[in-house]
Amino acid sequence: MEQRISLVTLGVSDVARSRAFYEALGWRGQEVEETVFFQAGGLALVLWGRDKLARDCGLPDEAAAGFGGIALAQNVRSDAEVDELLAAAQRAGATITKAAATNAIGFYSGVFTDPDGHAWEIAHNPGFTLAADGSLTIPDFGTA
Amino acid sequence: MEQRISLVTLGVSDVARSRAFYEALGWRGQEVEETVFFQAGGLALVLWGRDKLARDCGLPDEAAAGFGGIALAQNVRSDAEVDELLAAAQRAGATITKAAATNAIGFYSGVFTDPDGHAWEIAHNPGFTLAADGSLTIPDFGTA
Repeated sequence: MEQRISLVTLGVSDVARSRAFYEALGWRGQEVEETVFFQAGGLALVLWGRDKLARDCGLPDEAAAGFGGIALAQNVRSDAEVDELLAAAQRAGATITKAAATNAIGFYSGVFTDPDGHAWEIAHNPGFTLAADGSLTIPDFGTA
Repeated sequence: MEQRISLVTLGVSDVARSRAFYEALGWRGQEVEETVFFQAGGLALVLWGRDKLARDCGLPDEAAAGFGGIALAQNVRSDAEVDELLAAAQRAGATITKAAATNAIGFYSGVFTDPDGHAWEIAHNPGFTLAADGSLTIPDFGTA
């Protein structure tokens, strides 16, 4: 298996509401058959009906709302950017589930959830290199 | 907000088991403080204790196992590659939740779940361009 991800699909209860949320944050995508595709670097973030996504995966969808076991993160370039982005998300209707603060590891981050409860950590972690195009490179931790 | 993802973190119940699963599929990463980082193109796939991830997100973790509302996908270059990858995943301990088949849209795909139930769709969709480095470009659907 190659070491890469092609799509991250968020199951949502209302595609229009979810699209409006991400557009309020500045994302721009294309909608095809009630599916929204956002180009995000070398992969796509996709919004699709949660029921359809579960069915497509061959999985029963019994879980109530709540933490789904996966978190997305966007690393930014300054503590101020963390604050600005969390404030913008809140204005767009997100819930701030962790106010921005310096965490135990020593970097500044906060977390919001989108209208379906999908978690986004916004972090300024100088230990992880961000290229001009936003791509991230894991540092050499000297471990294996 | 820039239109990109820096990290996709999978909450797992046993980091060592989960790491062994992804390594059996050929992934190679670095472990730091019970956290495994895999470079995956311009972002990182991260394995971290589900309880720690929930706490870090400020979210209660009440959900039982089951579909968490997010699916990852890896697009490959042929139908045969879909079959090979699903077979390799099964040998590594994955559950095949959707056997490979041509779906309603007309492309060939199947789905496995990792030891914590995280879903991976493996797809051969010629409509989505894959660069040599594996990065994916959404086609121009002519929609907005």
